[in-house]
Amino acid sequence: MTEKASAFVPGHVTGFFSVVRTDDPTTTGSRGGGIALSDGVRVTVESAPETTVTLDGEPVQIEAVERVLDALEVEAAVTGETDLPIGAGFGVSGAMALGTALAANSAFDRRLSRDELVTIAHGAEVQAGTGLGDVVAQAAGGISLRLEPGGPMENRLDAIPAQSRIEYVTFGELDTATVIGGDTDRLTEAGNEGVSTVVGEPTVEQFMYASRRFAREAGLLTETVRDVIMDVAAADGEASMAMLGETVFATGEGLSAAGYDPAVCRVDPTGATLVDGRHAGTENSTLSSNASQ
Amino acid sequence: MTEKASAFVPGHVTGFFSVVRTDDPTTTGSRGGGIALSDGVRVTVESAPETTVTLDGEPVQIEAVERVLDALEVEAAVTGETDLPIGAGFGVSGAMALGTALAANSAFDRRLSRDELVTIAHGAEVQAGTGLGDVVAQAAGGISLRLEPGGPMENRLDAIPAQSRIEYVTFGELDTATVIGGDTDRLTEAGNEGVSTVVGEPTVEQFMYASRRFAREAGLLTETVRDVIMDVAAADGEASMAMLGETVFATGEGLSAAGYDPAVCRVDPTGATLVDGRHAGTENSTLSSNASQ
Repeated sequence: MTEKASAFVPGHVTGFFSVVRTDDPTTTGSRGGGIALSDGVRVTVESAPETTVTLDGEPVQIEAVERVLDALEVEAAVTGETDLPIGAGFGVSGAMALGTALAANSAFDRRLSRDELVTIAHGAEVQAGTGLGDVVAQAAGGISLRLEPGGPMENRLDAIPAQSRIEYVTFGELDTATVIGGDTDRLTEAGNEGVSTVVGEPTVEQFMYASRRFAREAGLLTETVRDVIMDVAAADGEASMAMLGETVFATGEGLSAAGYDPAVCRVDPTGATLVDGRHAGTENSTLSSNASQ
Repeated sequence: MTEKASAFVPGHVTGFFSVVRTDDPTTTGSRGGGIALSDGVRVTVESAPETTVTLDGEPVQIEAVERVLDALEVEAAVTGETDLPIGAGFGVSGAMALGTALAANSAFDRRLSRDELVTIAHGAEVQAGTGLGDVVAQAAGGISLRLEPGGPMENRLDAIPAQSRIEYVTFGELDTATVIGGDTDRLTEAGNEGVSTVVGEPTVEQFMYASRRFAREAGLLTETVRDVIMDVAAADGEASMAMLGETVFATGEGLSAAGYDPAVCRVDPTGATLVDGRHAGTENSTLSSNASQ
C-alpha cells in the first residue's frame, strides 16, 4: 500500500476582514469576505522517513504545515505545486496547511471528518500567525462571507451565489503576520462594516465596493495598488486589493481592459477536495481528477 | 437584458436518515448521510408571461418548484434536464427546487445570499412533502453527514473527506411522500444510529455499512434491492439502497463486478452551482461551465 494522496486547494483573495482573537485557535479567526480561485495549490503527501516540505520544487518552512503533520502524527514528504504568486495575498500557506490535512488523512487512513481536518488546518494557521480566515474560505469555495469567525464547527459562513472571471496582477509581497499581529482596531472596524454592507446586498458589485472601501479605510492601500485600481475604474471595471499582498484582483476583464496583462482564472465553486481517490479499503475506487482544474 | 440563467445541481442518494418535524419548515428536516452525484439536473430559468415547468421536455408539476418561484415572486419557464431516473431516490425534485432558486435569483437579480436561496428551496421541499434533507446535501456536495436537521442557517453538516466512483441501477419508483408522511419512528431510530456509527468513523466503508443496516432495520428493503446488494457483496463489493427509490448504489465497481450494467458517475465535490456567469451589473463576467460535468 502506497501511503500517498493529493488534494487541490483553491487560492483565496480576501477583500475585507476583521480580527477576532480568543484564547482558543478554533474560535479565533476573522469575519470577512473573499473569493476562492480556480488557480490554487496541489498538495501531495507521501510517507517518508522524515518530514520535508517543498513548494514548486524548493524546500520551504511553513509552520502551519508542520503543525498539521504533528496533529495527525505523520512524518511525510509534502509537495506543493502552484501557479499562484507566493506571499502576495493568495492564501498559499492556508492552502498548504489544508491540502496537507486532507491528503495526509487519506494517505495515512486517519479517519477524521472533513470538519475535523479543516479545524486542524485553521488552528495551525492561527497558531502560526499566518492567517485567520483563508482556510475555512478555501474549504468552502465560492465567494464566501465569513459572518462569524473560527473553525468550521464554530463559525458561520454564507456566500454570494455568483460566478465570475477573475483577473489579478501582483507587484510584491506584504507580510501577513506583521499586519495581523499588530494593532488591528481600525482594520476590524472597517472589516465589520464591509461584512454588513455585503450581507445587506450579497452581490459581486457590493463585494467589490466594500473591498475597495475597506482597503482605503484600513490604511492598507499601497500607492501602486491604488493607481491600478483607479486605472481599472477609469476603464469602467471593478478591482480591489487582495488582503494581504501587493496584489490587485478584478472581476470580468477589469485589468485587461485597463491595459494590464493579468493572470486569468475564475471563481472556484468547489473548495478544497481530494484529487486522488485513494482511501483505505475502497480499492476499486477510481482516481478522480479535480473538478476545478 | 435576457432574464435567463442556469444552475447545475448534483443528484443525491441518501443512505440513512431520521425525520425531525417542527412547526417551522426551516427547522424541519432530517439527520442522515448521503452522496452527491456528478450525475445531476441542469435547471434553466427564463422570464415568461406565465410559469411552466418541464423536465426532459415533458411538462411536469413539481410543487416545490412552484413554491420557490412564488417566494422569489417570479413568473418563469423552468426547464430541467437530467440523465437521472425520476422518482427513484436521486433527489430530482430537490434538485429542481434548488436549481430554480439559484437560477431565478441570478436571472431576476433578486440579490439573495446562497443560504437564503437554499433555505427557500429546503422549505419548499418540506412543505411539498417531497424531501427533508436532499436540498441541503445537494447544496453542499460531497459525502455529507447531516448532524442536525433543517435549512442551512439551522442545521449542522459535516462530511466524509473522500472521493469514489459511484455506480447505480434502478428497478422502479417509491413514493417519498408516502414513506416520510407515515409513521417514521422505527426509521428515525435506525437513522440516528446510522449517523452515530458514521460520525464515530467517517469513512466510505462505514457509510456503506450504516446504509445497509439502516435499509434493513427501517424495513424499507425490497426483495429485488436486497438480492442485488447480496450479489454485490458476493463479488466483494459495497452496495446499498437509495432512500427512497427501488435503486441500488455501489462504490467503486461494485455493481459491474457483480455482473450488472450500471450507470456510472462519481462523488460530486462541488454542490449546486450556477453554470451561467450572468449576474446583473457584471456584464463582462464570462460563462463558466460547471466544474463537475
